[in-house]
Amino acid sequence: MIPIISIVGKSNSGKTTLIEKLVPELKRRGLKVGTIKHDVHGFELDQEGKDTWRHAQAGVDTVVISSPQKAACIKKVDVELTLDELVCQFLTDMDIVLTEGYKRQDKPKIEVYRTELGEEPLCADDKTLIAIVSDTKTPLNVPHFGTQDIEQLADFIIKRFRNIGSKDAVQLFVNGKQIPLSRRFTQTVLHKTISGMVDSLKGTEGAEQIRIFIDEDA
Amino acid sequence: MIPIISIVGKSNSGKTTLIEKLVPELKRRGLKVGTIKHDVHGFELDQEGKDTWRHAQAGVDTVVISSPQKAACIKKVDVELTLDELVCQFLTDMDIVLTEGYKRQDKPKIEVYRTELGEEPLCADDKTLIAIVSDTKTPLNVPHFGTQDIEQLADFIIKRFRNIGSKDAVQLFVNGKQIPLSRRFTQTVLHKTISGMVDSLKGTEGAEQIRIFIDEDA
Repeated sequence: MIPIISIVGKSNSGKTTLIEKLVPELKRRGLKVGTIKHDVHGFELDQEGKDTWRHAQAGVDTVVISSPQKAACIKKVDVELTLDELVCQFLTDMDIVLTEGYKRQDKPKIEVYRTELGEEPLCADDKTLIAIVSDTKTPLNVPHFGTQDIEQLADFIIKRFRNIGSKDAVQLFVNGKQIPLSRRFTQTVLHKTISGMVDSLKGTEGAEQIRIFIDEDA
Repeated sequence: MIPIISIVGKSNSGKTTLIEKLVPELKRRGLKVGTIKHDVHGFELDQEGKDTWRHAQAGVDTVVISSPQKAACIKKVDVELTLDELVCQFLTDMDIVLTEGYKRQDKPKIEVYRTELGEEPLCADDKTLIAIVSDTKTPLNVPHFGTQDIEQLADFIIKRFRNIGSKDAVQLFVNGKQIPLSRRFTQTVLHKTISGMVDSLKGTEGAEQIRIFIDEDA
């Protein structure tokens, strides 16, 4: 399972700043880090007049742009994708995913809290809160980290999500949701059965990366 | 198999303009259309100072942004992704993919050709050329379409790729390359075996969409 942690907090509390500091700390520990930014108002990533912008204007459902350094994709959706769906679509090769926002979803949360912004932390009653980042104390019964204690926060995250970075050979998503393959036995059966079937097909020699997409309504 | 067609031509020949006209014509026929733009020089999609831009600057490997209307993703790569890898990563839910550029890859090609740009069409000796879009005749032995004959060009594409739009229930990618599951029998065996195994796991009730990712080096 790829751990997903939501960095939440009121507007202007310092969520982006915390992510900017936490990411290099996690990268130093050898992890591949993905982020998901929640934009409730909609965003305009591409610039008017560019070729990819013209594709999108012409009605293309998914526009991809690729260079030697990076690949990007803009996908139209009918319904906003959930965090699990976003991970399944874009982030299956990451070791950890941090989200900016998404306070209403059920992922473990770290709240950035500043007293001057209001009386109560946003997640005072939220059972998914696992830590507070703040320069003041709060009565909440979770670990507190100062806004400069980034190394300690990274240690806390790595301790909390034990298997971080040790990716499973088999990842399974059903209806966009990651399914924990709890027992080594299940992993092995899925792995061996599928590799065996794929191996019997033409053009699959030296299969190191197998992707299977099944859609019942196709 | 998702058909991939490359729209090629010299610089300024009208590739983007052809895509702008062809996409609505394909959409009118009920197809989900994806495009891939080749950017050899590298691109800057995000804008300086934005939250997602700050994530990328901090070293994030894959940045995702999601709104109710669209989802976007910017992924760092060590080596430029092939067309097959881009389709596997971003476009498995499309009926057809058009690429702008990629004249050196082995996908079927439609060349946009204008005499004033040079003597010879770019793909004069290219066996993957399937059509020319031009307002002048060429000696090449492939169907020619005028730059306004977009309806006829769409008809030609749909006739040429017979199963367009009738998506297979099972899609298989090995090492980033789409594997044709030529026989209905192979499809069915993969489908039933995997659905059966997945069905026996907890939390997979009503599985309509199954995604399996196997990485041998994980």
